Amino acid sequence: MRILCSGSATLDTIFRLEEIPSGPGKVLPSDVVQSAHGMAASAAAAVAKLGGEALLHSRVGDDEVGARIVADLTAAGIDCRHVLRVKGARSPLSTVLVDRNGERLVVPFFDPALGRDPTPPPLAEIETCGAVLVDVRRPDDAAEVLRQARRCGIPAVLDADTGPAEAHAALFPLSTHAIFSEPAALAFSGTDDPVTALERLAARHDGFVSITLGPEGCIWFDREARAIRRIRPPRVTAVDTLAAGDVFHGAFTLMLAEGRSIEDCIRFANVAAAIKCTVFGGRKGTPSRPAVEALLAASHFPVETA
Amino acid sequence: MRILCSGSATLDTIFRLEEIPSGPGKVLPSDVVQSAHGMAASAAAAVAKLGGEALLHSRVGDDEVGARIVADLTAAGIDCRHVLRVKGARSPLSTVLVDRNGERLVVPFFDPALGRDPTPPPLAEIETCGAVLVDVRRPDDAAEVLRQARRCGIPAVLDADTGPAEAHAALFPLSTHAIFSEPAALAFSGTDDPVTALERLAARHDGFVSITLGPEGCIWFDREARAIRRIRPPRVTAVDTLAAGDVFHGAFTLMLAEGRSIEDCIRFANVAAAIKCTVFGGRKGTPSRPAVEALLAASHFPVETA
Repeated sequence: MRILCSGSATLDTIFRLEEIPSGPGKVLPSDVVQSAHGMAASAAAAVAKLGGEALLHSRVGDDEVGARIVADLTAAGIDCRHVLRVKGARSPLSTVLVDRNGERLVVPFFDPALGRDPTPPPLAEIETCGAVLVDVRRPDDAAEVLRQARRCGIPAVLDADTGPAEAHAALFPLSTHAIFSEPAALAFSGTDDPVTALERLAARHDGFVSITLGPEGCIWFDREARAIRRIRPPRVTAVDTLAAGDVFHGAFTLMLAEGRSIEDCIRFANVAAAIKCTVFGGRKGTPSRPAVEALLAASHFPVETA
Repeated sequence: MRILCSGSATLDTIFRLEEIPSGPGKVLPSDVVQSAHGMAASAAAAVAKLGGEALLHSRVGDDEVGARIVADLTAAGIDCRHVLRVKGARSPLSTVLVDRNGERLVVPFFDPALGRDPTPPPLAEIETCGAVLVDVRRPDDAAEVLRQARRCGIPAVLDADTGPAEAHAALFPLSTHAIFSEPAALAFSGTDDPVTALERLAARHDGFVSITLGPEGCIWFDREARAIRRIRPPRVTAVDTLAAGDVFHGAFTLMLAEGRSIEDCIRFANVAAAIKCTVFGGRKGTPSRPAVEALLAASHFPVETA
């Protein structure tokens, strides 16, 4: 099953340390991993790891970092033919500090020059896909991808993580399935309660609307029953939550493309993301499909009413 | 004039931002530079930029990062034939956050496996050099380099920056010229006053002993007069002090090898380091020799008694 993921790809340097520092000085990390991440890229890597065929549409620079990003994502099994190498632009770079509780400080750099290339998204590829997934990094590209997915009659999934309000306003109505992060949902709907946020979001959209709440699982609006449902993930000891959201989105979109029920999509995505959190190194902790299925078979994840 | 620099080489990701963050979250940098640094490597790059011939002795991993470090330092004009690529080890990686006042948070990672390679330092090369410069990263290698320099009758310069007390205790007596950073001098001599620290250090050594004090310049012990001397640098607006110490050490060692007086070595090194501080991007701000000489010719930097 082919999935097109459209959005960001970056080279991340992920340090593991006792505590996130407060202010200037020097802190010695106990471990480090350098690898390609980014919302769409990590989700695409999850699709590939979980047995799907992942196509990535993204923009990097024509520098050495861009070459490393493409090489690393290709090695992760992603088709990178539509990762643009934008002339004269610098590739996205992030440093992430992860503390002993899995809390993070993220310093991401994006060169505005990446926007200069006028190459459109690979819309013809979408005809061959079972679903698309977009993030909010490049709203114009994402809008075209969502529209084309709707024309093709396949799921158009939006990873609605923190970003400019205009991006959410433009992309939310175009998606068939919107998955908000908790901070993005609260900011976009102007409340500090996730249940209220979900009600407000669902009132503005006629498709699937959900919010991921980390260890509290995923809540979504059940339109038939006009109720808010929740499925919790397995309990794990988190050592690194970096890319957990992206793994959720990739896993969810793949299951949707395979025709699973919403409940099963959420169960599968919850379990994949939870296992990821037990491993240091961002998306490198993404589990294989048998590992997810083994945990799904061994446990029961009931639908609750929130 | 050939200079052997022995010590650390790392791949640094340097972010420029308004303020060093305090705790978890996300901060957006306004700029980023990724390039090879490290104490010995940045000093070697300064030697090359200032017209000397720089040989680097260091250890990196046999990974992609190691290849980038060697390529970047070779492009800076450094002879990297003696940069060991240690099998199965990961290359040193650092992230540096620089705030609007040039203050820094540094997160450096060094793989203990880099120590495994038994290759000795390139002692035969030292016979062809005018001076050596070592940092405290690999004390065993540094001790051999300093001893060989003494056997050859050339200056054996120690960059005594913060490090384990045993490293300072082992290397300080082997050097002919020791340049302490302020925090290292205070820690090693057990006082919080730089002048007292210098007196204590000079009592334990019969060569040249000095402490660099950033914008307050360099103080050293004048053995003939039994007095503490100081030369101040030009006043500049610092935007990034990363690698300023390394530029000082490289410039000082090159001038020493060229046979200049101690006062002229310090003036030249002060000016080179001060100009570096006006440019964002670590060692990329190292000035050319004509730029240093123009500022030296235009100003007077008298010897003060501290």
